[in-house]
Amino acid sequence: MLAGTLRQVLGEAKVSTSPSVLEAHGRDEGYPEVRPPLAVVFAETVADVQAVLEVARREGVPVIPFGAGTSLEGALVPQGPAISLDLSRMNQILEVRPEDFVAVVEPGVTRKRLNERLRREGLFFPVDPGADASLGGMAATNASGTTTVRYGGMRANVLALQVVLANGEVLELGRAVRKTSSGYDLKDLFIGSEGTLGVITRLTLKLHPLPEHVHTLRVFFPSVERTAEAAYAILASGLPVARLELVDDLALRAVNRYLDRNYPERPALFLEFHSATAAAMQEESRFALELVREAGALEVEAAMTAEERTAQWEARHQAYWALVNLFPQRKYLITDTAVPLSRMPELVGYARALMDEMRLEGNILGHVGDGNFHTLIAARDDAYARAEAFAERLVARALELGGTATGEHGVGLRKKKYMPLEHGNALAWMARLKTLFDPEGLLNPGKVV
Amino acid sequence: MLAGTLRQVLGEAKVSTSPSVLEAHGRDEGYPEVRPPLAVVFAETVADVQAVLEVARREGVPVIPFGAGTSLEGALVPQGPAISLDLSRMNQILEVRPEDFVAVVEPGVTRKRLNERLRREGLFFPVDPGADASLGGMAATNASGTTTVRYGGMRANVLALQVVLANGEVLELGRAVRKTSSGYDLKDLFIGSEGTLGVITRLTLKLHPLPEHVHTLRVFFPSVERTAEAAYAILASGLPVARLELVDDLALRAVNRYLDRNYPERPALFLEFHSATAAAMQEESRFALELVREAGALEVEAAMTAEERTAQWEARHQAYWALVNLFPQRKYLITDTAVPLSRMPELVGYARALMDEMRLEGNILGHVGDGNFHTLIAARDDAYARAEAFAERLVARALELGGTATGEHGVGLRKKKYMPLEHGNALAWMARLKTLFDPEGLLNPGKVV
Ligand SMILES: Cc1cc2nc3c(=O)[nH]c(=O)nc-3n(C[C@H](O)[C@H](O)[C@H](O)COP(=O)(O)OP(=O)(O)OC[C@H]3O[C@@H](n4cnc5c(N)ncnc54)[C@H](O)[C@@H]3O)c2cc1C
Ligand SMILES: Cc1cc2nc3c(=O)[nH]c(=O)nc-3n(C[C@H](O)[C@H](O)[C@H](O)COP(=O)(O)OP(=O)(O)OC[C@H]3O[C@@H](n4cnc5c(N)ncnc54)[C@H](O)[C@@H]3O)c2cc1C
Repeated sequence: MLAGTLRQVLGEAKVSTSPSVLEAHGRDEGYPEVRPPLAVVFAETVADVQAVLEVARREGVPVIPFGAGTSLEGALVPQGPAISLDLSRMNQILEVRPEDFVAVVEPGVTRKRLNERLRREGLFFPVDPGADASLGGMAATNASGTTTVRYGGMRANVLALQVVLANGEVLELGRAVRKTSSGYDLKDLFIGSEGTLGVITRLTLKLHPLPEHVHTLRVFFPSVERTAEAAYAILASGLPVARLELVDDLALRAVNRYLDRNYPERPALFLEFHSATAAAMQEESRFALELVREAGALEVEAAMTAEERTAQWEARHQAYWALVNLFPQRKYLITDTAVPLSRMPELVGYARALMDEMRLEGNILGHVGDGNFHTLIAARDDAYARAEAFAERLVARALELGGTATGEHGVGLRKKKYMPLEHGNALAWMARLKTLFDPEGLLNPGKVV
Repeated sequence: MLAGTLRQVLGEAKVSTSPSVLEAHGRDEGYPEVRPPLAVVFAETVADVQAVLEVARREGVPVIPFGAGTSLEGALVPQGPAISLDLSRMNQILEVRPEDFVAVVEPGVTRKRLNERLRREGLFFPVDPGADASLGGMAATNASGTTTVRYGGMRANVLALQVVLANGEVLELGRAVRKTSSGYDLKDLFIGSEGTLGVITRLTLKLHPLPEHVHTLRVFFPSVERTAEAAYAILASGLPVARLELVDDLALRAVNRYLDRNYPERPALFLEFHSATAAAMQEESRFALELVREAGALEVEAAMTAEERTAQWEARHQAYWALVNLFPQRKYLITDTAVPLSRMPELVGYARALMDEMRLEGNILGHVGDGNFHTLIAARDDAYARAEAFAERLVARALELGGTATGEHGVGLRKKKYMPLEHGNALAWMARLKTLFDPEGLLNPGKVV
């Protein structure tokens, strides 16, 4: 028995076959199916990871690394018998070196815990995927989020990785330096590989000074086109914009109903700026106001204090939960296409019209500063296939516009079908890389490529 | 005859075997040896590149891509019979899309020409390796430079690449979007691969708004330690610093002699800030002054106008040429180690002491905001071996401090010997990647891995 073997090798305390644990490891936050693995191993050390891989090789059973389980595309869902390798117990913050703007962490550390620890140093790790994901999982999906327009995503903020390959070898990729041109960039190859090339067992992260002077704006526009124009004006201005988010009228309607608010039901931009000094903040806030008014803003609210800011972002943060709460019995489907900046209004318009045409209910939210937006669909069971057809048409259109099937969530199972169109013959080379690093197909097989 | 075959396939006008052309293609700007290739092909199209590779496969003669020839580590110098594939005629700026902050260029476009074209759009491409390199060469070496502290290097600013593999296949890697989590990151694997994995035939670049409000500071300190402390204070402040350069006292002495100036012969910081508004600039300049004074500045000069700024950066820009001019008959050796920020003063001190101990003449200059600095050694012929020994000891020390052998210039021939220590067993995987993409070893063999 596989679980027995694992218990023998790793000890009782690190292996679980309890149905609820298996169930929790056979799913993610966005894929509709649940397929429990055969066993879950809670690794505590690199040696544990190597031991699991050794069992996997011997028994011919694949391994699926598991971070915090917040991903959305089925990357955690087994395609056959599999061991789930849970890394949440590898959760030590190994080093914080403020003088280098560097932290070294185990993969199970979550971003919120890291940022709590960093606050006292006046530093933070900027990548914010909304959910309280693990840093290993975030690297594995190349996560990004609201602050990416200013600070970049995981590739820009992970300096080095330790990974364990399928054969048990431990590699150190990258160095704790801000730049290097030394050798092939294996670090970035493993970032975004969704557990299919190796298991991430340590990360060296780039930290940033906590902004001292922050101001935010919430601005409502008559149309999505105007909203996008305003976003462009902000990007072109050189203003130190740190977040630049779109929330559409339907998302605001859902928030109004869910939280009993009365936000204008108009497309809105939520903006945050990080300034170096208080006086610069005043000045930059004034300039930003000027720009959004020129772009046709109907209503503008500025916030300078922390409480005002939190209140102001409520509608953005609650947009997902508003939809889930309005339609609690449904299945949800999230898309995350990204397109060249100027094509975003067009694609948002297309998504909205297509949603109506296909009689689907959902919101549109976006990291508009990156040309990346989400449609969140709440589908009745019998409409789920329609929601998937919607996603397919939306992705096809995004690719036509020069975009990508996934700006941040990754490929998993759901988006594999888009890969041939997006990558052409490069996809065959991705498959060859997979074979090179994992010839027996033991690491999260069936995902990405 | 190889040249005859190439002429037959590509036409007379694209092939040269003139001794001066061969000579110019058998060298770079920093490696001491010159080894002319058998022939130089001036490709004008992707089909030309494919044709050269076909000849290479048929005749078993390797191909070395050639951009502007400004690299420093011997990456262009053949290790045996070879064809130099010059890409300077593929120099079309194919598209500038200001509304997407995107430009699409052929690999032979130089960064200065691109920036001239972009100026009228109010945009620029920020990566600045000093020399007027080609964008293909810059991608191939993962170049970076003075503005990298703010805007990142090539990996952060190249969105997509077209590459031709050794087998003639054309791959499109990445998309013209600001972020993607789609598939394995082949784009970043080819960036920094120094022509050993494929030939870059098109680049899609990320552009930035030209800063409207720029101010600069030149600050002299009593010691390198103080200089580094000031640099740290600036980085931690959140100020919008766009350049943060160290020039040491000996470099200034050389500039004084070369240009007949009287700069204080003290370690100096050259700083540039990009502000969003005029008022923010005033305020940020004041704050920056406060910080450098607190850090122990002896002398500070601020410049707000374009002319003042140009004058102020003279000493930084002339430091290389000052050394070359002071010692015109010598050979030059440049190092480019990068270390974690806090180790930089220590390593600079080590380099200075070691240079003195080994009786070598040279300067120290650095992208101190990235923990990356150069020693420029001017060595008499009989001291060149000593200069190389110096570089070896410096790199060994940098690696001990957690650094990298090359922050920006790449590996070429000269730094191959450091790769085992820097990468450990990851180096064998780099070699496997090389074999995967170029099984016959036809692309710039003997370099990097
Ligand atoms: C409400 C909500 C909002 C979200 N918003 C965003 C967003 O804005 N941006 C964004 O990028 N994502 C977003 N996500 C998706 C999700 O948070 C990210 O994909 C996150 O990076 C997943 O991290 P995780 O730790 O939960 O990984 P998991 O879900 O546990 O795993 C994800 C993938 O990574 C692999 N993996 C995990 N750990 C390792 C490891 N140590 N080594 C190797 N492989 C590993 C897994 O095998 C799997 O393939 C959101 C999710 C939710 C629920
Ligand atoms: C005074 C001086 C200062 C410098 N300062 C810096 C600095 O601050 N930062 C920095 O990064 N560099 C610096 N450099 C080094 C140099 O400018 C960079 O390495 C630059 O990126 C090389 O570009 P190139 O077009 O000259 O490439 P080349 O020298 O022609 O080639 C470099 C490598 O790239 C390969 N290559 C070229 N074109 C292609 C292509 N289209 N496809 C595939 N491979 C290709 C070549 O085979 C070779 O391996 C400096 C050089 C000088 C002389």
